[in-house]
Formats: sequence, structure tokens, C-alpha cells
Amino acid sequence: MADLKEIGKQAKATRYILAGLDTDTKNKALFTAAECLETDAADILAENAKDLEAGRSRSMPEGLLDRLSLTQKRISDMAEGLRQVAALPDPVGEILDTFTRPNGLVISKRRVPLGVIGIIYESRPNVTADAFGLCFKAGNAVILKGGSDAIFSNLAIEKSLHRALAQCNIPETAVQLIPSTDRAVTQEMMRLNESIDVLIPRGGAGLIKMVVENSTVPVIETGTGNCHVYVDADADFDMAIRIILNAKTQRVGVCNACESLVIHESICDSFLPKLYQALREKDVEIHADDRAFLEIDGCVPATEADYGTEYLALKLSVKTVSSLEEAIGHINRYNTGHSEAIITNNEAHARTFLDQVDAACVYVNASTRFTDGFEFGFGAEIGISTQMLHARGPMGLKELTSYKYTIRGNGQTRS
Amino acid sequence: MADLKEIGKQAKATRYILAGLDTDTKNKALFTAAECLETDAADILAENAKDLEAGRSRSMPEGLLDRLSLTQKRISDMAEGLRQVAALPDPVGEILDTFTRPNGLVISKRRVPLGVIGIIYESRPNVTADAFGLCFKAGNAVILKGGSDAIFSNLAIEKSLHRALAQCNIPETAVQLIPSTDRAVTQEMMRLNESIDVLIPRGGAGLIKMVVENSTVPVIETGTGNCHVYVDADADFDMAIRIILNAKTQRVGVCNACESLVIHESICDSFLPKLYQALREKDVEIHADDRAFLEIDGCVPATEADYGTEYLALKLSVKTVSSLEEAIGHINRYNTGHSEAIITNNEAHARTFLDQVDAACVYVNASTRFTDGFEFGFGAEIGISTQMLHARGPMGLKELTSYKYTIRGNGQTRS
Repeated sequence: MADLKEIGKQAKATRYILAGLDTDTKNKALFTAAECLETDAADILAENAKDLEAGRSRSMPEGLLDRLSLTQKRISDMAEGLRQVAALPDPVGEILDTFTRPNGLVISKRRVPLGVIGIIYESRPNVTADAFGLCFKAGNAVILKGGSDAIFSNLAIEKSLHRALAQCNIPETAVQLIPSTDRAVTQEMMRLNESIDVLIPRGGAGLIKMVVENSTVPVIETGTGNCHVYVDADADFDMAIRIILNAKTQRVGVCNACESLVIHESICDSFLPKLYQALREKDVEIHADDRAFLEIDGCVPATEADYGTEYLALKLSVKTVSSLEEAIGHINRYNTGHSEAIITNNEAHARTFLDQVDAACVYVNASTRFTDGFEFGFGAEIGISTQMLHARGPMGLKELTSYKYTIRGNGQTRS
Repeated sequence: MADLKEIGKQAKATRYILAGLDTDTKNKALFTAAECLETDAADILAENAKDLEAGRSRSMPEGLLDRLSLTQKRISDMAEGLRQVAALPDPVGEILDTFTRPNGLVISKRRVPLGVIGIIYESRPNVTADAFGLCFKAGNAVILKGGSDAIFSNLAIEKSLHRALAQCNIPETAVQLIPSTDRAVTQEMMRLNESIDVLIPRGGAGLIKMVVENSTVPVIETGTGNCHVYVDADADFDMAIRIILNAKTQRVGVCNACESLVIHESICDSFLPKLYQALREKDVEIHADDRAFLEIDGCVPATEADYGTEYLALKLSVKTVSSLEEAIGHINRYNTGHSEAIITNNEAHARTFLDQVDAACVYVNASTRFTDGFEFGFGAEIGISTQMLHARGPMGLKELTSYKYTIRGNGQTRS
């Protein structure tokens, strides 16, 4: 079993070194890491083949095998990802505020790294390089616990990253993959408050729930998205159809996809037939309430459970409401704090929706699919936070930092 | 046993109402609450007398009885505290950032309340009013779990606050005290993720540890302060003595008091005799390492355990170092992320200390006692955060908020 206490101790010692690295040094290390990944591609692919073989021998489904699989192209993408992170502005050291108190103390609020970040993730081996890149650029040490399915791939990627760090005279302990597939190690990691400052689970709802329920280390909850589009009484129908199709079908199985349509009762007759036809052309199964139900193939009655379900599939629930207030109430009851949209030409309704809907990202006349670090211009993201604490929505480099106050005096004492 | 699920449900429904209140309405409610507390003082004192009687019959120590005790003056102070919070700027609704993406989406980052805040606290009944005031002004609903020692006092204060809210047509469920002293309720509260967004424990190290270890709701850790003052080789000795005396003795038993002195070996002979004399005049017991030990009354050899101890008493540990680097290493090893100070005339050393010491508040030539919401000019505070996530150091109204992104488009879809 891995000596997690020792890994934590090393990470904690390393975080102080990383916090002091200048931007050029960090960028050079990221470029070197990109190069090493490309140079080591053959080794990484060979180790990945072991994981794939083990997966096949356990009859892993094709979809999971695809997520696990690395190719020359996917390794190049990982390398390119690190180069892109190098190109982003360094958040560390930014002075967020400075003020002078009546007693002469000068107080500055300075952006600093979070410290040691733990990432618990599932079978995609690219997370090993991606998470390292973002955490490292923001000055953090990172401890990675990947899925057991990908252990050989992850270790090979870690080895390549270590080679790069060594070349740049940076401690290899800037990134440490836990070399164990033992579940007890994950349990121990979730209680390592003495050295881990924050845990970010990346994966399905089950993984995230497990981490939230078992971790005593602070957690950033990410990725669950029961996202709604509300079509208001005076919406532009063509725009509404374009946006709903995009939010539902442009990519299924992602957290910012639309899972539920909320519609004003006054437009059921005029709008739904056209919408349902467009959805059915994309094979979307429609789970509608009584008022929104149409006798067509692929339209079934909705149950209460539908409204609480993140399908991650070609399915859409439909709820009819008699007012904007009812729409907002429904959304605030069932949503997961991710992304919600209204389609309307009524400016007062748009404002009310933006004010009252409680979610990380609230849209007027646009697709929920834009909730994404790249689309927001953050350059990259470690995930989408769905909690209220620390960061909400797409988390880029800034969201991987904290702050400290530095205070300069000339002998002040408190009276 | 209290129906905590129902309390949570009520709080969650109320948070949406509170989030939409304008500043005047909130301020009027705070002024009304202040008035009600003063009008109800006789009732509150009568209920407080029951708690005091119960405490005495259980032989509660005098110090705890004093913390539990309310007087006309203490009730006026609570009321005055609410009026001061009313006078502070409303953080809710502030636009933190706005940017336009190449596709025309206009993204704004807007400050919003955190939602539902749970406070778990010990015997001081004034927290009931203070915590309500801050949480409410920042637009949050609050669920309070006070100590069983203060249950009658807390219920009386809650009743008064409810009277004020009702007068202002604001749901009384803006503040809900759990009407139970059952420990099982605290356990249930710490796992009420469905309706509580953040838990803030206020009390001793034991309470905070209990909450961190048992809560699945996100926690803001507050209040543990193993704070150091480092006296550098070329410090101003008179200033150093003034600051150390202030940080150690101006108020003992508070989290921003100095617990440990770190001193450069080159000034042991010239500085320590004078310092120790000043400390002994204030009855401070000195736990010194070999190099810093002096054969005087009240100076004892330090053990390893001393460096990790937050005494909260008239005791001070002393550690000798041979360099600034060693001082920083010692502090980063033993501190609790609260407040650390260097006394120096060397600007390069001051900068290095500010850069490398990892704590919420890092001082040059000033007392650690200034880590405080009032001293920082925040007007009030709910506590001092010692964790990296969300907020660090004194937490005022802004730190009781989160943000959301509002995004306006004209039909954008993702390609």
C-alpha cells in the first residue's frame, strides 16, 4: 500500500517551492513536459496497451475502452494542452486590493496558490497531464489518484512529467500519482487534512457523491448538470428550436447539456409540434407532462422522477408552467446549480430570470453548452463547480488560487 | 427531536426570497431587530437566568458562566452590533466583472448570497444575534445550532428576531435556531447537504475539529491560531518588545495572540534578557530552547510539543534559528495558517518573509492582534478563516457571498 502520509508530506514541502517559482520557470517546465510526453509517446502507448488488454480481459464495454485508449494524436493533444496552459497569464502574485488603515497599517490582498490539490478521477489518462498542467501553472503541488483501469498509462505519463521537471530542476514531487489501485488509499486520501488543501473529484455522479460523503478535506463539487431551457410566452420560436437542439444534441453526455425543457402553457399548441418534430429528427425521446404531451412516436408521459434526472442521453423532459414565477420555482427546485437558460423577447422577464434563478450560469437567449472554461475565455478548466463555496461555474487558473493578506507597519500595536 | 429536514427546507425556500431583498428593506429589518432586542431585554434576561441557574447547578466554572451571562449592557451591545451591520455597504448584486466574447455573448460575474449558512457555536448567546445580522445582510438564510448551555437565552433572542422580521414582512425562517440540545441533531445538520450550503463552526479547537471531521456540508474552518513573531537579526529591539508584549498579553485566549517567539541566534544575548524581563513583569511563562534559555524565574525548557501548542494563556515558546530561511521553515511547519509577524529593519528580509510565510495574514513590524474584521475595516466579522478555500483571514460581509455568471446572447449556439 502506498505511503500516503509520506506523499502528503512531500507535496506539502514542495508547495512552498512551487509558490515561489517565477512565471518563466513554470512555463519552461510546461513546454519541457509537452516535449517529454511527445518523446515518450512510444513508452506511454506501450503501457496504455497493458491497461487496454486488462480492460478487454475484464470485458470492459467499448465506450470505456475508448475513454481509456491513448493514441499518438491524444498524446499530442495532451502536450498541446500543456503548451496552451503555458501561454495563459500567471495568476499568482496578483495584488487584488491594497488599503491603508487609519493607524497607518498598509494591507494588501495578494493572490497565492491554493497549496496541495488532490484530484480523484476515473479512466481518462489525459487527466493526469491536464490536471498537472493547470495546478502547476497556478503554483500548486498536486496529488493524483487515477482509476485502477488506467494505472499503467497514468504511471507512464507521470514518469514523463517527472523527467521534464527534473530537467528543469523542479522537484518531481510537484506531481505525485498514487501508485496504488487500492480503494483504502482513496479513503485515506480523503482524510489527509494535514497536507491536502482541497480535493477535486472528476468523474461521474457516483464518484463525486462518494467523495463529498467521505472527505474531511474541503471538496469542490463539480460536474452534475440537470440543466433547463425555459421557453417564455413571447420567445422567438426559431431561436428557441436552434438553442434547444444545440443544448440537447450537440454533445450528449456532458454536464452542460440541456436535460429539461420548461415551457409557458400559452405556446404549447403553437410551438411544441414544430419543436418535437425537430427533436425527433435527432432521435430525442420526449418525456412530457399532460399539457405538453403529443400523440407522436417517441413522446412518453413524464413522471416526477424525470424532472430530477440528468439523463446524459438523447432524452428530454418537458414541464408546462403558467407563469415565469412557476418556471423559476420549478428550476430552483430541480436544478443542480449548473446552467439554466430562458428564451424570451421580454426584457423584464429576462431580468427576473437572471436575478432569481439560482445557478452558476444563467443565460438569456443562448445555449447552456457555453458553460465551459474555453468558451468563457479562461483558456482551460479543471471542471465546473456546482457548489457555492470558493468558485462557481468554470474553474480556470484563478479558481485554483487563494489569497493572503500582507500587512506592513512601523511598530503598530493594538489598544 | 427537531425536524431538521423541515428546517432545511424552510431555509432553502427563504434564501430565494432573501436574495431578492433590496438594501433598504434589509437595513430596516436590522434596525427593527435591534429595537426588538432592547424592548425584549427583560424577557431575554429572564430566560438567560434559567440557563445560568442550570449552569450553576451543574457547577459550571465561573469563566463559562461569565460567557453565558447576559446583562442589559450586553443586550444593548447586540442591538448596536445589528445597527452597525445595517450601516455597512450591501455586498449583494455587485458586478465583479463583465466581458464580451468573440461570439457576442456578454458575460457578467455578479455577487450573490451564499445561500443557507449553518452556524454551530458554543455558549455565548450573543452569537445568535451577531451571526443572524451578518448572514442576513449578505442575503443568506441562517440555521443556528447553539450550545445546550444557552438554549433558553438563544430561544428568547430568536423570538425577538422573529418578532422584528414579522413586523417587516420578512419570513421568520430567515433565522432558525434548532430548538434542541440533542447531539444527534448536530450530526444530522452536518450532513444536510441538500439544504445547507456552508457550515461555519464558532468555538474552541475541539468543536472545530469535530465539525471538520464529521461534516459532509462544506465547512469554513476558523479560529485556531498558533501565531509566531520572528525577531530578525537587525530588528528594532524596543519595537520588538512592544509588539511581542502586545501580541502576547493585550488579550490572552484569542486566536490572533502570539504563542511562539522565533529569534535569530545572533541577538539572543543582547535582546532576550530585556525581553524576558518585560514578559515576566506581565507574568508570562517562557518555554525556551537551549540557546534561548535563561536562568530566571518563569523560564522553563521548551519541549517539541510546545511549538505545536496554541496556549491561549500567559505562556510563550521561544525557538532560536540561525537564518531567516530556518525561521520561515519553522513557522510554515508549526503554524495554523492564521497570523505571523517579522520584526526587522531589513527590507529584503521583510519581502522574503511576506512572500514565503504561508498564513492568512503576514505582518512586518506590527502586532498579530490586528487580524480582525474591525481592525481590517470590514466593519464586522463572522470569524477568521484558517483554510485556503473560499476565504482566508477575517471574514466580513463579502466573504459571506458567492457569485454567479449571467450571460446574455441573441441566439448563440455552440459549434
